[in-house]
Amino acid sequence: MPRATLTISSKNYSSWSLRGWLLCKMAGIAFDEAQVDPDSAANRQELLLLSPSVRVPRLERGTIAVWDTLAIAEYLHETFPEAGLYPRDVTQRALCRSISGEMHSGFYNLRSALPMNLKARHKAFKIFSGARPDIERVKEIWHQCLLTSPGPFLFGPTPSVADAMYAPVCTRFRTYSVDLDPVLQAYVEAVLAWDLMVEWTEGALAEPDEITELDVEF
Amino acid sequence: MPRATLTISSKNYSSWSLRGWLLCKMAGIAFDEAQVDPDSAANRQELLLLSPSVRVPRLERGTIAVWDTLAIAEYLHETFPEAGLYPRDVTQRALCRSISGEMHSGFYNLRSALPMNLKARHKAFKIFSGARPDIERVKEIWHQCLLTSPGPFLFGPTPSVADAMYAPVCTRFRTYSVDLDPVLQAYVEAVLAWDLMVEWTEGALAEPDEITELDVEF
Repeated sequence: MPRATLTISSKNYSSWSLRGWLLCKMAGIAFDEAQVDPDSAANRQELLLLSPSVRVPRLERGTIAVWDTLAIAEYLHETFPEAGLYPRDVTQRALCRSISGEMHSGFYNLRSALPMNLKARHKAFKIFSGARPDIERVKEIWHQCLLTSPGPFLFGPTPSVADAMYAPVCTRFRTYSVDLDPVLQAYVEAVLAWDLMVEWTEGALAEPDEITELDVEF
Repeated sequence: MPRATLTISSKNYSSWSLRGWLLCKMAGIAFDEAQVDPDSAANRQELLLLSPSVRVPRLERGTIAVWDTLAIAEYLHETFPEAGLYPRDVTQRALCRSISGEMHSGFYNLRSALPMNLKARHKAFKIFSGARPDIERVKEIWHQCLLTSPGPFLFGPTPSVADAMYAPVCTRFRTYSVDLDPVLQAYVEAVLAWDLMVEWTEGALAEPDEITELDVEF
C-alpha cells in the first residue's frame, strides 16, 4: 500500500478538513497532506458554505478514493478496527454514529453563523437567533453522552468519531465565547487540549491571513 | 431481539423517511412502522427543511436506538453483512459511501427547490438556477457509477445504500420532469420499478392530502 494523501483546505477555516485529518491521525495511517488553495473561487465557496464537498477532505490510499467525512470514518473503521474509532459496545456505537450523522447533515445555522476561525476570539458575540436551537441541541447531545461516559471524551478516555465530528464546534464555542456549564466546559477544554487538536491549531495559526474576514451574514 | 420499530413521517413528502425505510427493508429486518403526525408544527418543519432529524427516520431495536439515515445504514450493514447493503469490493464500497455521504450532507438547493412529492407531476417546471449545479453533480455521480456497474443499479444488479440515498432524487426527477439522457433515464426507471419503491409509493398515494402545498420558495 503506497503512502496515503489527504487533501485539505485552510487549517484555520475548514472544519471538514479538520474532521478528516483527525480521523486519519486517530486511525494511525501515514499520510501526506495536500492543500488546495483557499483563495481560489471554488475553494472559497466551500469554506463559505461550510459544507463538505468532493474536494476536501479527500483521502487517497492505493486504489481507494474516499471524499466524504463520514465515508472516511467508516472506511478507516473497517480497515483498522483495532484503532477504536467507534465504541466497542453496539448500543454506544449506534449512538456515536447517530450524533455524528446529525452533525454531518444538520446544524446548518450553527455552521453558518459561527464559522470556524481558530485565530479569532469574540468576547461579546451576538448569536443569531436561528443558531440558538442548534447550540441547545449540541449541549443536549454532549450531556447525554457525558452522563454515562467515564470521560473526558464523549465515549470514554480516548476520542471517537463523535469527538472528531464535534471538535470544530468546541473551537467555535471558544471563538465566540458561548456560555457552557462546568461539565460541558470541561469537555471543550479536553478536546482543545487533545494533542492532535494542539498540532492542528499550531498549523492554523501559522497560516498566512489570506482570508481576513468571511463575508457571511451574521 | 424484540421486533424493531421504524419511526417515519409522511410517505409522500419525507425523503429521509423513505431512505431509512428502504434500508431496513433491504436488510431484511422485521419492523413495525410508527408514523409521526405530519401536521404537527415540528414535523412540518422537518418536512419543509427537508433535513434529517432526531425524530425521523429513527430505528429502535432492542436496546439500540439509531436515528440518522447513514447511521442506520452502517448499523444494519455491520449487523447483517450478508444483506449486501454495500458493495463487496473495498474500492467500490468507498465510492458507494462517498456518494452516499455527499447526498447526506449536501445538495441543499436540490432538496429545497425540488421537494419530494410523489403525488405531483410538473410538466414544465422552472428549476431555480441555484439547484442546477446540484442536478449536474447528481448526473455526474450516476454516470461515474453506471460506467462500470453491470446495472441496472449504481453498483450492480441489486440496490445498495447509494440507490436508497438517491431514490428520492429519482422521484423528484420524475415529478419535476428533469431532462435525462437514456442511460440516466433507464436508471431512474429501474429505481422507480424496484418492488420496494412500488410498495412505498402505494403507501404515499394512499395518504390523505393533509398538506396540499409546501410553502417553500421556488
